[in-house]
Amino acid sequence: MFSTKTYQDRRELLQQKVGSGLILLLGNIENPINFEHNTYPFRQDSTLLYYYGIKVPNIAAVIDVDNQQTIVFGDELDIDQIVWTGKQETLQEKCAKAGVKTTLPFSALQAYLHRAIKSGQQVHYLPPYQSFNKILLSDLTGIPIGNITPSSLLIEAIVSQRSIKEHQELAEIEKALQVSVDMHMLAMRMTKPGMKERDIAHAIQHYAADQGSPLAYPPIVTVRGEILHNAYQLHTLKYGDMLLNDSGAETEMGYAADLTRTFPVGPAFSAQQRELYAVVLKSFSDARARLSPHVTFKEIHLHACESLVEGLIAVGLMKGDPKEAVSQHAHTLFFQCGLGHMMGLDVHDMEDLGEQYVGYTAEDPKDTQTFGLKSLRLGKKLEPGFVLTVEPGIYIIPELIDRWQAENKLSEFINYDRLHSYRNFGGIRIEDNFVITDNGYRLLGPELIKTADDIENFRKNYVS
Amino acid sequence: MFSTKTYQDRRELLQQKVGSGLILLLGNIENPINFEHNTYPFRQDSTLLYYYGIKVPNIAAVIDVDNQQTIVFGDELDIDQIVWTGKQETLQEKCAKAGVKTTLPFSALQAYLHRAIKSGQQVHYLPPYQSFNKILLSDLTGIPIGNITPSSLLIEAIVSQRSIKEHQELAEIEKALQVSVDMHMLAMRMTKPGMKERDIAHAIQHYAADQGSPLAYPPIVTVRGEILHNAYQLHTLKYGDMLLNDSGAETEMGYAADLTRTFPVGPAFSAQQRELYAVVLKSFSDARARLSPHVTFKEIHLHACESLVEGLIAVGLMKGDPKEAVSQHAHTLFFQCGLGHMMGLDVHDMEDLGEQYVGYTAEDPKDTQTFGLKSLRLGKKLEPGFVLTVEPGIYIIPELIDRWQAENKLSEFINYDRLHSYRNFGGIRIEDNFVITDNGYRLLGPELIKTADDIENFRKNYVS
Repeated sequence: MFSTKTYQDRRELLQQKVGSGLILLLGNIENPINFEHNTYPFRQDSTLLYYYGIKVPNIAAVIDVDNQQTIVFGDELDIDQIVWTGKQETLQEKCAKAGVKTTLPFSALQAYLHRAIKSGQQVHYLPPYQSFNKILLSDLTGIPIGNITPSSLLIEAIVSQRSIKEHQELAEIEKALQVSVDMHMLAMRMTKPGMKERDIAHAIQHYAADQGSPLAYPPIVTVRGEILHNAYQLHTLKYGDMLLNDSGAETEMGYAADLTRTFPVGPAFSAQQRELYAVVLKSFSDARARLSPHVTFKEIHLHACESLVEGLIAVGLMKGDPKEAVSQHAHTLFFQCGLGHMMGLDVHDMEDLGEQYVGYTAEDPKDTQTFGLKSLRLGKKLEPGFVLTVEPGIYIIPELIDRWQAENKLSEFINYDRLHSYRNFGGIRIEDNFVITDNGYRLLGPELIKTADDIENFRKNYVS
Repeated sequence: MFSTKTYQDRRELLQQKVGSGLILLLGNIENPINFEHNTYPFRQDSTLLYYYGIKVPNIAAVIDVDNQQTIVFGDELDIDQIVWTGKQETLQEKCAKAGVKTTLPFSALQAYLHRAIKSGQQVHYLPPYQSFNKILLSDLTGIPIGNITPSSLLIEAIVSQRSIKEHQELAEIEKALQVSVDMHMLAMRMTKPGMKERDIAHAIQHYAADQGSPLAYPPIVTVRGEILHNAYQLHTLKYGDMLLNDSGAETEMGYAADLTRTFPVGPAFSAQQRELYAVVLKSFSDARARLSPHVTFKEIHLHACESLVEGLIAVGLMKGDPKEAVSQHAHTLFFQCGLGHMMGLDVHDMEDLGEQYVGYTAEDPKDTQTFGLKSLRLGKKLEPGFVLTVEPGIYIIPELIDRWQAENKLSEFINYDRLHSYRNFGGIRIEDNFVITDNGYRLLGPELIKTADDIENFRKNYVS
């Protein structure tokens, strides 16, 4: 946990931003796998972590803005439970560390809220993402699940606060990155032809766990790098493949890292791989150089796309004017998603609060229709303290090529003929994490090797 | 998956048992961790696995008993999704393997059910344990969540079927046990003073994952064996400690294993440990010897308790008449829980359907009040084909002793004075898995060493 004052200050600021009424924050539960008492690892809700730092299931927190008071609702263990779980720090002790003086039984929450509503206080709450909390929120407020209306005032207040990372939060993220860089180095050391993808995925997960870190998200470790959400990890690695490793650790306090590297399964890239790798790396460097306050991330995204197109033209896979190609979204045949996203207590930071609030503004809302842009999670003007990922890529997706080619789509920009010999190429992504500073940006965490030369020089020590 | 005929036969039998109406089985979803698209590993609902073997999220199955037809409701991937996930076996192909000819979009389910209800068909469904399915079931049926009424007819039909394991199911469980025995041997090889509990827990999890097996439940790996649900894994192991390892793997098809061993962190048990270990092992052997059809598991549980009491009397921790002590529940100061439970597609098999249905009968219902018996998940008469665990233990829980002693509770059976020197003893559990045969029982899986001598002989090769 951070200091007591940290949590007090964060709540104080939140109260000021919200102004009046009650703020209700629901914690997470231990979610059932295949029956109620066989549960997934507990993960506290990130907003509750941010304002209270308390990592126990089945609690809710209320901030009574009008009366400058906060209460945590939750139950202490009774002796029957202590028989099963052992003596533990009490909820009251945990609350004290977060600067909370009052705790009440969870069962008192409903009556408490009803009294508040009756007395005319408005109850502000967030969009629930776990079904348990949808039901709970409906029970607590008497509003049917379908009509639950999260408070945009509260969402905006929280997003504005959580978006600007404190120094101690940056230090946590760099802790997550230290573990993540080690995970990636381990993957680059151990990968050999004949292994299965999952051998690597399990080893890095095991390494992180031994450091006390769960993974911040299900790792993508695949020779089919073009499959963006690849859960299948049973391919056998062979010479000529590239392995894409997108994985990051989470600290004990809940802060995430999110790194991607793509490297050859053998000691070296093929000429074709090397060529496209350089295109992605150039796009990465071009995007990184533009990171600074007062630029929108959407501009940087579009610059990165242009850079990709220039490279793809040089390779002969695209043609025409790069700017024009990007404006017509021709690059989305190769780069179907966004350049990056906010990162913090969530790997996609605050995604539960809504991408529109986190990544966009009312004046410049998210484009939810256009292929490519609809997957760009962050578009708005950057500010000092934002932490984000930069992750351009090239993904050769046969099904998508077939569909475009059948329509002869944007053939003024795409060399479909030449593309044919890349059909089984796979995918490349390079991803690092940055904080926006007053003048530009700072790479977070230790530098992880990323040029093709550096990767090959490293790999040749471990595979021949 | 098993053969197509297996699933067809299982459904055919279920139809016969239920007789009429519609059977609705809901599959599981990918549950959110900290936002909707960051999800826990998917685990299909076990009943859906049993009747269909289909491991994809967001499906539901209907068996129209009146019209002898089954339909799976679920959506095929569209091209937008294939861009993200790659081409995969279609739902229709998966259904074909399960002998299902008709698939419909998930969105068609509600109208389908409404038509059926309107035409007078009764819809039978199971108790939902995941909150998502509580909401879904309420939406589908129009019944408020609090009033959802699962079909006891359907529950009884499924319990009667799933309780008797087929040979191919036994083979799956033995596959899970093969991995689990290897996990336990690994733990017994690697454990050394100075390590942390979690080092062992992570290593066995990693081993199982590499065999393609997730763990069937969160592993309990602890030097505080008396804490029955110990999630804390940060104790440093030291000479004199015993490590309790309760962990089991799950096969790709979903079948579980559940083994416990307790062994010294150093090369040998202390005299005190050895003495109580022998008491638990004797109780285990006594219970095992009684496994056979037509005996109730409750009788075997009580015999095992009596055996524990006899041992504890010999050691000087209890006194008086063993039978009398057990009938007054005096043993529950040392053995607070049940002797075992059913096992199969769930580690506590079918616990989502209700312990009363799975472990008891209407004539001899579960005792839900008495400390000790209220934690006995299985009480009814055993039948050939039942798969169950036998897991007696001795748990020295200081908080419980203090409470009993303050009341001078059952002091005619407990030597509180002598117990004082055992206050920090910890806990011992020994657990294996068995199938009930026509004449008795058969140990499932390879035999895992369990006498104190065998364990010490093994351990001394790895720690000195």
